Amino acid sequence: MARVVVDVMPKPEILDPQGKAVTGALGRLGFSGISVRQGKRFELEVDGEVTPERLADIRRAAETLLANTVIETFDVRVEAPAQAHA
Amino acid sequence: MARVVVDVMPKPEILDPQGKAVTGALGRLGFSGISVRQGKRFELEVDGEVTPERLADIRRAAETLLANTVIETFDVRVEAPAQAHA
Repeated sequence: MARVVVDVMPKPEILDPQGKAVTGALGRLGFSGISVRQGKRFELEVDGEVTPERLADIRRAAETLLANTVIETFDVRVEAPAQAHA
Repeated sequence: MARVVVDVMPKPEILDPQGKAVTGALGRLGFSGISVRQGKRFELEVDGEVTPERLADIRRAAETLLANTVIETFDVRVEAPAQAHA
């Protein structure tokens, strides 16, 4: 079992209303000097080994389903299994 | 200007309907053996240097605004500026 992470972000030139809203809220909470862009993170638990063919498959899945490539960019990377969250 | 990334994921024990839906769709598209969990990714462009105090500030912002710590976990990391997306 391997974990592949797909990060999907709005393209820089695309308006990001969610990010703007969060930026405004942070400012009101007293966190100044921070601008935020919001995207999606997909953690894919993949059966078996992540061979180059498998990774190409996952890139195709990201392109067709996980990201809207007209307005979003995506980044695919294999993550070491022991990556625990806070 | 530094970039700090905050990854927010549903806690493992929490039902992830979005992730289930994506998993099902991938299966129908012929991508088998992949299970997906969906979360949020925040890219914070921070003015000035990211000092330990600043990072503690950002963790507090993540805790209060970016993540619902009852059902989500979050992970804060400073990203090298030149991280270009595909």
